[in-house]
Amino acid sequence: MAFSEYRPLNEKSLIEYIKAEPSLSSKLGNSLDDIKIKEVGDGNLNFVFIVVGPAGSCVIKQALPYVRCIGESWPMTKERAYFEALALREHGRLSPEHVPEVYHFDHAMSLIGMRYLEPPHIILRKGLTAGIEYPLLAEHMSEYMARTLYFTSLLYRSTTEHKRAVAECCGNVELCRLTEQVVFSDPYKVSQYNHWTSPYLDRDAEAVRQDNALKLEVAELKSKFCERAQALIHGDLHTGSVMVTHESTQVIDPEFAFYGPMGFDIGAFLGNLILAFFAQDGHADQVNDRKTYKEWILRTIEETWNLFHKKFIALWDEHKDGSGEAYLPAIYNNPRRIVGVAHVEDFNQSRMLANEQIVSSRLLK
Amino acid sequence: MAFSEYRPLNEKSLIEYIKAEPSLSSKLGNSLDDIKIKEVGDGNLNFVFIVVGPAGSCVIKQALPYVRCIGESWPMTKERAYFEALALREHGRLSPEHVPEVYHFDHAMSLIGMRYLEPPHIILRKGLTAGIEYPLLAEHMSEYMARTLYFTSLLYRSTTEHKRAVAECCGNVELCRLTEQVVFSDPYKVSQYNHWTSPYLDRDAEAVRQDNALKLEVAELKSKFCERAQALIHGDLHTGSVMVTHESTQVIDPEFAFYGPMGFDIGAFLGNLILAFFAQDGHADQVNDRKTYKEWILRTIEETWNLFHKKFIALWDEHKDGSGEAYLPAIYNNPRRIVGVAHVEDFNQSRMLANEQIVSSRLLK
Repeated sequence: MAFSEYRPLNEKSLIEYIKAEPSLSSKLGNSLDDIKIKEVGDGNLNFVFIVVGPAGSCVIKQALPYVRCIGESWPMTKERAYFEALALREHGRLSPEHVPEVYHFDHAMSLIGMRYLEPPHIILRKGLTAGIEYPLLAEHMSEYMARTLYFTSLLYRSTTEHKRAVAECCGNVELCRLTEQVVFSDPYKVSQYNHWTSPYLDRDAEAVRQDNALKLEVAELKSKFCERAQALIHGDLHTGSVMVTHESTQVIDPEFAFYGPMGFDIGAFLGNLILAFFAQDGHADQVNDRKTYKEWILRTIEETWNLFHKKFIALWDEHKDGSGEAYLPAIYNNPRRIVGVAHVEDFNQSRMLANEQIVSSRLLK
Repeated sequence: MAFSEYRPLNEKSLIEYIKAEPSLSSKLGNSLDDIKIKEVGDGNLNFVFIVVGPAGSCVIKQALPYVRCIGESWPMTKERAYFEALALREHGRLSPEHVPEVYHFDHAMSLIGMRYLEPPHIILRKGLTAGIEYPLLAEHMSEYMARTLYFTSLLYRSTTEHKRAVAECCGNVELCRLTEQVVFSDPYKVSQYNHWTSPYLDRDAEAVRQDNALKLEVAELKSKFCERAQALIHGDLHTGSVMVTHESTQVIDPEFAFYGPMGFDIGAFLGNLILAFFAQDGHADQVNDRKTYKEWILRTIEETWNLFHKKFIALWDEHKDGSGEAYLPAIYNNPRRIVGVAHVEDFNQSRMLANEQIVSSRLLK
């Protein structure tokens, strides 16, 4: 049964849906008798059903047409499922080891069927709060970012391919607006959606609102976010969008994906590690003062950037005679030297990091 | 008779076409008996028919599906007529005194009917070569650029409006590629399309190809050209795209229009005035040493930039509490100071001008 119109599923109708959909039922070994379904989304944004049977498993994620936010409903297009599926597939093609496989996408139902990231996978943010080290995190995240960002940029693609891809993905307007508001606007003005530990941080929040130099930098970053179609970015790459075990790193939830500046992904991930660093003191206790763990976080930040840099440049070197049109070989006939200088211009994160640090150090010191 | 399929017109079929099209025949006073038709396009790119009758006139421009270039045919989509019509209408709405009115657009025929810019209108480049001063040129061009660029940017529009407009206009891929090639690539490598006064300038051309610092700057500009949807730009704003009299300045031929960086229009226009400046010595003779004229060109460059700056900031001030989302009033509550600093960041032409000057001074000294 294919539903031609959107309707939110429940655990019962979900079984009917899976039965009618071979790409999903085959993942459960075509035996739906003993399957267990658990809804784990918080119901604020999406339904997330974990479906586990004796012969297989999957996750069904369905977008709801609103966000429940601070008690009231905020309409939010369920079209975001389209962009999430598009990004999961494109990023999955480019970095299959770090993106869950998509089994099925139903546009009318705003529904994605994908790989179930089985235990002990947990959300990275929870792992960081618990003080768990992930020795492969920097290796994996740098790999994911280098490959997804490089291969969707003009360093790899012709301008024709790039413009076609950008046009296909240019409709994620509402979710971009949400980012514009909550990342680039609200923190710098009085907004009902801002909250902080009051009254202790009132003066810090006020200082952010009064800092003209910071706000000008932020305006510049916002302009890049709104105007610059540099690569297919995840768009919400904080530590809550990554699931981890000691061996595995999986990037999920790219519903904010669009063609934007690479730095937004890199900066979001590194910035959230910085937040985790500053948050550690609050988790310290008699048993664990978290000092070693803070050092691990700092090392991970440094390694993530250094490995990203190395891998990105290596991809560029590897494909330098390919179809990428940003730097034509016939012009840049001295590639070593050019590469060495150019990356600093293009991917310099210092501004974004500086801003994150300013905010972090003020709010979390 | 509406043609549902493309076919190139000639002077005879054009009359039939106009008769069947009220928006055109009405411009000729509905009397087609004594009209005179003259084809003035060079047939390399477009047919341009001037149609003049006793009771009115118009110009009919029809795109050909190729560019004849150095003896051979270079396929070039006739879809460019769509983008030309779109830009003429949008820029005409924003700056009606400096853009010829569009009477009619026929997508299938790649045909635009528009105002005939009657004599003594001539192409600005020809006027500059002839040494004619246009006292209102800086005033008019700064007005055109300030209004078309400001009102199609995020300084005036919401991000929703902006993304919709960008999506509507995102298909001008082939003409963008032509610019990428002839402006950002060919001059910096060996290309069959490059030509210069050989052998006299061979070493200068070689020096451009070897200048790594220049080429890195150009790569940065190319990246902005390909990625940054800042405003609806003309895309080919050289002095051959402007028709002038002493009283009138009209910007024509925006077939390269797309959402790109504002600096590309401003830089192209000012850069072409710089080229005109350096070319004057070659036009000097016993009667006129062109020294006064060169001073007028320099003054016009300075005035164009200063007036553009003033008008652009004035528009921004005037609409600062409007729907533009680049700088929200609630954040930038100290507008004077912010405006004063921000424009330097956003519209700094020094790089593009510096590059034009480097090239100009090398090739034309």
